[in-house]
Amino acid sequence: MSTAKPAARPLNVALAMAADVGRKVFPPQRLATVTGPLHLLSPEPITDFSAPEAKRLLAETDVLLTGWGCPMIDGAVLDAAPRLRYVLHAGGSVKHHVGPECWDRGIQVSTAADANAIPVAEYTMAMILLANKRVLQIARELRGARAAVDPEGLFPDMGNYGKRVGIIGASKIGRHVIRLLAAYELEVVLADPFVTPEQAAALGVELVALEELVSTSDVVSLHAPSLPATRHMFDAGLIARLRSGTTFINTSRGELVDQEALLRRLEQGDIYAVLDVTTPWVLPADSGFYTNPNVLLTPHLAGSLGTELERLAASAIDEAYRAARGEALRFEVKAEELAFTA
Amino acid sequence: MSTAKPAARPLNVALAMAADVGRKVFPPQRLATVTGPLHLLSPEPITDFSAPEAKRLLAETDVLLTGWGCPMIDGAVLDAAPRLRYVLHAGGSVKHHVGPECWDRGIQVSTAADANAIPVAEYTMAMILLANKRVLQIARELRGARAAVDPEGLFPDMGNYGKRVGIIGASKIGRHVIRLLAAYELEVVLADPFVTPEQAAALGVELVALEELVSTSDVVSLHAPSLPATRHMFDAGLIARLRSGTTFINTSRGELVDQEALLRRLEQGDIYAVLDVTTPWVLPADSGFYTNPNVLLTPHLAGSLGTELERLAASAIDEAYRAARGEALRFEVKAEELAFTA
Repeated sequence: MSTAKPAARPLNVALAMAADVGRKVFPPQRLATVTGPLHLLSPEPITDFSAPEAKRLLAETDVLLTGWGCPMIDGAVLDAAPRLRYVLHAGGSVKHHVGPECWDRGIQVSTAADANAIPVAEYTMAMILLANKRVLQIARELRGARAAVDPEGLFPDMGNYGKRVGIIGASKIGRHVIRLLAAYELEVVLADPFVTPEQAAALGVELVALEELVSTSDVVSLHAPSLPATRHMFDAGLIARLRSGTTFINTSRGELVDQEALLRRLEQGDIYAVLDVTTPWVLPADSGFYTNPNVLLTPHLAGSLGTELERLAASAIDEAYRAARGEALRFEVKAEELAFTA
Repeated sequence: MSTAKPAARPLNVALAMAADVGRKVFPPQRLATVTGPLHLLSPEPITDFSAPEAKRLLAETDVLLTGWGCPMIDGAVLDAAPRLRYVLHAGGSVKHHVGPECWDRGIQVSTAADANAIPVAEYTMAMILLANKRVLQIARELRGARAAVDPEGLFPDMGNYGKRVGIIGASKIGRHVIRLLAAYELEVVLADPFVTPEQAAALGVELVALEELVSTSDVVSLHAPSLPATRHMFDAGLIARLRSGTTFINTSRGELVDQEALLRRLEQGDIYAVLDVTTPWVLPADSGFYTNPNVLLTPHLAGSLGTELERLAASAIDEAYRAARGEALRFEVKAEELAFTA
């Protein structure tokens, strides 16, 4: 807990991010909530720290609310911002715009990565429910038949009761999926090399080996970070272990998956996939993922989009209020954590 | 609370339902949980109470676990079942197989209607998340384009944050949808003529007039009972009030909706519908609901199917254990409630 006192005067707040990000993430009705102990210097985000107007704002800024496209905050920027004490990011990673000088000079940094994880987990939750019930497959059958269709005749094992859901990776997203799953009567298992059985039990799930997870789960959902070490971690060997009828969900990164092996298995027709991410980001027009009837392909839409961008702003503004009240930030990022996060 | 004592001997349990229902709802692994203070007389369900084997079982039965297709339990059946004290239904309505004589003779009756509501609410929850994020519409665009697709360009208002979800009817299903929605950052409003504002507040939602709900919600989900008074309650007037972009979800009964008016509005292309039920049950092959791109049509699959049937059995068996322990039933149905339930 912080021992700082509430600020004696309102904290001056400025924005820094790409202009179009500003319009979407901090629309007027959201900016109107920056009030009371916070004073918004300008509704226009800084897009270039070297511009004269930016320098004028920086000279007075206590709190910088940042978003995607914020230029790097380095020593020169900080020299122009003598009062700056907080960089509060309305997005996930701060790697690309928060320089080491920020921490060196005692500036507190926070992230909206937790808020950013929510929509991905929600997309995953919806897909788990659809997969177990075979909703999209049966809907397609009905559209084709235009006559009575017997769901249980097509899929005797359908249903969201007693199925096993395997979560690969207790990331922020993986953990939120686990939290959401608690409201359903499904068995949840987790594979994560950095989690102990005790930590898994505290999350309410059973820790299992990755191979066991893949070969025993009805739905397998990937929530691991994209790192050199995780490239193609979901490889041909694991893909071969998927049981007939399993649904594989990927909302993380295409690089984690051996897509060739996945497509070959999908072409056998006995597994399903929900892919919100691929490599490359936009697949070539002749990719089999577009046409395979067992694939639901979406264009990287699980993450924060549309109204969900405002959640990121709300999270960053909440942090600014904590700062103004002299409270500890809720989602502070320490310099030493940077190397271990996406 | 019941003041009855635990039974001094195991309670004899028999099954009564259609044979195929027995196989699906009470498979061997589920029947294996009928043990200890419960004694299963036979794994084969009674399908005809007048058969000699049925009479032999009834003479010893304390607890009858019933399922869909159970023949009517009338005075003659009860005459053959002198020890019968509990009729525990592994299904929703008990109207079609529990005669008034059961209550007259002090037999306790219970239902698995709460368990039966769960999968419908779960289907609805998944559809709400998909609708707000426009997942199926964007997936179709991507499949058609086989190239980059800009979700926010197509649907600037997309997102599961701050959207309004309107629930029509605080039925068992409607209430479970409301419970599940509490894990999401969505505004939930309820219209139900039998609920007070205070009761709505206790559910965590705001009570509004039906017209207001329909004209202000991003998703409208129908969970009212099918009664003569509710036929076509979702009429042309309400359908005209739906805002552009709204998704209408029906998992209740087709009879509640003026389908002609709904289809005409859908043909304007500015609203969406998820229909798990229609009138007639199977639409004629030329119905526009099969082909409208803004409709997700499913063949009455939201309810208990596949593994979800076992949840009904689990609920009824739980009740049998409560009976054996001398505890009050959790889902008792009183004779006077029958007139007010579906």
